[in-house]
Amino acid sequence: MDLKPTKPLSGFIELTPTQQRCFDECARRMQDALRGAGFAHLDLPAIERAEVLTDKDNWDEIETQMFLFQKGDTKMGLRYDGTVGLSRYVAGNINSLVFPFRAYQFARNYRGERPQRGRYREFYQMDLDIMGINSLSTNYDAEIVATLSRVYESVAEFIGPTIVRVGNRKFWNAMFDYLELDEVQRRSAFVLIDKKDKLKDFEEGLIAEIGESAAREINKVFTDGYRSFVGKSYNLDSAIVELDNFMNLLGAMGIKNAKIDLGIMRGHAYYTGVVFEFFLENWPELGAIGGGGRYEDLASKFSKTKIIGVGAAVGFSRLMVALMDDNRIDLTQFESPVDVAVLCMGADQVVYSMSVLGALRDAKIASVAYLDADKKFKNQIEYADKINAKFSMIIGENEVKNQVVAVKNMRTGEQVDMMVLDAIKMVRGE
Amino acid sequence: MDLKPTKPLSGFIELTPTQQRCFDECARRMQDALRGAGFAHLDLPAIERAEVLTDKDNWDEIETQMFLFQKGDTKMGLRYDGTVGLSRYVAGNINSLVFPFRAYQFARNYRGERPQRGRYREFYQMDLDIMGINSLSTNYDAEIVATLSRVYESVAEFIGPTIVRVGNRKFWNAMFDYLELDEVQRRSAFVLIDKKDKLKDFEEGLIAEIGESAAREINKVFTDGYRSFVGKSYNLDSAIVELDNFMNLLGAMGIKNAKIDLGIMRGHAYYTGVVFEFFLENWPELGAIGGGGRYEDLASKFSKTKIIGVGAAVGFSRLMVALMDDNRIDLTQFESPVDVAVLCMGADQVVYSMSVLGALRDAKIASVAYLDADKKFKNQIEYADKINAKFSMIIGENEVKNQVVAVKNMRTGEQVDMMVLDAIKMVRGE
Repeated sequence: MDLKPTKPLSGFIELTPTQQRCFDECARRMQDALRGAGFAHLDLPAIERAEVLTDKDNWDEIETQMFLFQKGDTKMGLRYDGTVGLSRYVAGNINSLVFPFRAYQFARNYRGERPQRGRYREFYQMDLDIMGINSLSTNYDAEIVATLSRVYESVAEFIGPTIVRVGNRKFWNAMFDYLELDEVQRRSAFVLIDKKDKLKDFEEGLIAEIGESAAREINKVFTDGYRSFVGKSYNLDSAIVELDNFMNLLGAMGIKNAKIDLGIMRGHAYYTGVVFEFFLENWPELGAIGGGGRYEDLASKFSKTKIIGVGAAVGFSRLMVALMDDNRIDLTQFESPVDVAVLCMGADQVVYSMSVLGALRDAKIASVAYLDADKKFKNQIEYADKINAKFSMIIGENEVKNQVVAVKNMRTGEQVDMMVLDAIKMVRGE
Repeated sequence: MDLKPTKPLSGFIELTPTQQRCFDECARRMQDALRGAGFAHLDLPAIERAEVLTDKDNWDEIETQMFLFQKGDTKMGLRYDGTVGLSRYVAGNINSLVFPFRAYQFARNYRGERPQRGRYREFYQMDLDIMGINSLSTNYDAEIVATLSRVYESVAEFIGPTIVRVGNRKFWNAMFDYLELDEVQRRSAFVLIDKKDKLKDFEEGLIAEIGESAAREINKVFTDGYRSFVGKSYNLDSAIVELDNFMNLLGAMGIKNAKIDLGIMRGHAYYTGVVFEFFLENWPELGAIGGGGRYEDLASKFSKTKIIGVGAAVGFSRLMVALMDDNRIDLTQFESPVDVAVLCMGADQVVYSMSVLGALRDAKIASVAYLDADKKFKNQIEYADKINAKFSMIIGENEVKNQVVAVKNMRTGEQVDMMVLDAIKMVRGE
């Protein structure tokens, strides 16, 4: 019989146990930071009705982008982001939730397209949102960015420091009004500003699309700063006040890694105010590792009530896999599943070995026992070595007789007989 | 325009934020217990090749049981348990893993069938396994049961105590040999023993299938105990030694909730030795909340190397949802996302409020701020009340001037002005 394939499907991530421990530790710290900021965890279904996932009714077309299936008469598919489920959930529970409602998701999302390097078909994304009914102060824009800054800071030991660049759609709307651009010119200017850093000659491109004088003014935002437009129009002034207020609030929260960069646009059409992107200070070439902004009317397809929000998404799998694959995280501390390996030299010592194991676990010391008692000492110590245990506790006839354990420090090779309770204290560094 | 549906698809679980906090806390404690026992977390893809998921090639038939889709020429589907992926992963990484290999999974699995009460289409299952190459001491049977006992004990505060009933297939094989049953009789006896507790007259059924004298002997296992078969045959003796040894090891590990019950069979064909099932002591009618056993040759479809293992699975979603839906868990401690709500009485106090929020979060106090500063005090205190915050820190003109916060104990209604640092100490109970 032919053996079945053992590799995962292409586009799917499979980590080593060591990588997984690092992945989990970062996920845990980041979620703890979110919970500490009052964000409720929403663990929504991965499968949604097709009509929830998309407005399109061209089944063949969307099938190339998503994982879809049909059960009975119901077409359904795997979610591709956190927003669709969030909209549905908040609209459906509008009367029981307390607003402003803070929610986070840490969940797998799915893309049915052909996989490319750094783009997966299954990946964890972290979403955080603050939502209000009918209104939501722009003060929350600063809270979202401050919270996400702290979320990244919780794993700075592994990913290094981040910087966040903050733009604002309102500023550009006010600017385009002030420059009297028409719809076509606005769209062109928007696209060019969004791609600014990738363009060889930004200003020349702008001139071709919106004329010389308007182009010069827009370029001035980047050369002279946005404050040089104070007093030009009421809307520009209020956008500038919003930007300054935003930076003040971040300062008050102790956040120092933010800067205004009006070149940040974020393509998605639904942002209406602040937009922001986070980057790794030590590896900016990786691109944005998270970002978001303010949106109006999250759930208009599900509810007549207007839900306004500000939120962000973190491409968690992409970030972690990129860092680990590129050896940018020192995985040493994640190499071992346990601190202690109990090695049992014979069948008559199994009961005693198990009682030592029970005592270690009662003392919250991560520990395993090697219970194939007929295996030679050499095999057993090799096992302890391979799993990178800090200590072995070796149990033979004499240890049982004297009710001790032979504790071997696996780094130094030093070995000493100890009472179990003393060995436990030693491992715990007491 | 018609609004889209806001309910999740039938058979999918959606928890309230309060329920989710309880669910997450239990999942965290149980996983911590597994990690402390040296089990590596495997977070395998939810999507596998169809040929990995099933040996059947009747696409239409398996489509009624699973979620399947096709991308290009590749048929794939959502996993329905943890074993398929584990087999593939272990076979594919046999040279880099260290054996005995301890692994756990905590993952969503999927069933495509029509949903029924208590059976979900998407559910979390926890799997734990210890695997060896070519051999694995039966001592690990006791370790799996002891570990799972401790895993449940870590959440005993919520689910109450458990009991575990332990059977052994080897005992029955030896017994059937001793009774000289033929293949047909063995199968009948197996099925009847498996269903014993549900049958009105177990012995009568047995007599009809295997004759009176054999039936009386089998019934004696349950009336007089398995030790009454000591000395009957070599294989019976060695099965009895294995049972006694198993109980000794559990005792050595400090596990007191186990008892031998040879009526435990577990239907699955692949178990070859110990089999066990866990029940809630306070709610046995819920049925088995987890179980498992020893199997030979986990990965024969993926590898020519023989992988032997002992493992268990916990129906985590089913357990938690049943307990919460039936109000058997006191959710009081999970009702609030935070300890402190900072309430901000006006636009001029936002910066100060944010600095207080920053200080609270630096001090690891779960906290939120109400930043719609134009909302009335009544609305703000209502918010703090609805989210069940323990304290409000109210900030108006005077508090900013005096650099204090007005701390209101939301349980007692008592309110007092305090320096921020003193307020932090008070909340932390210092």
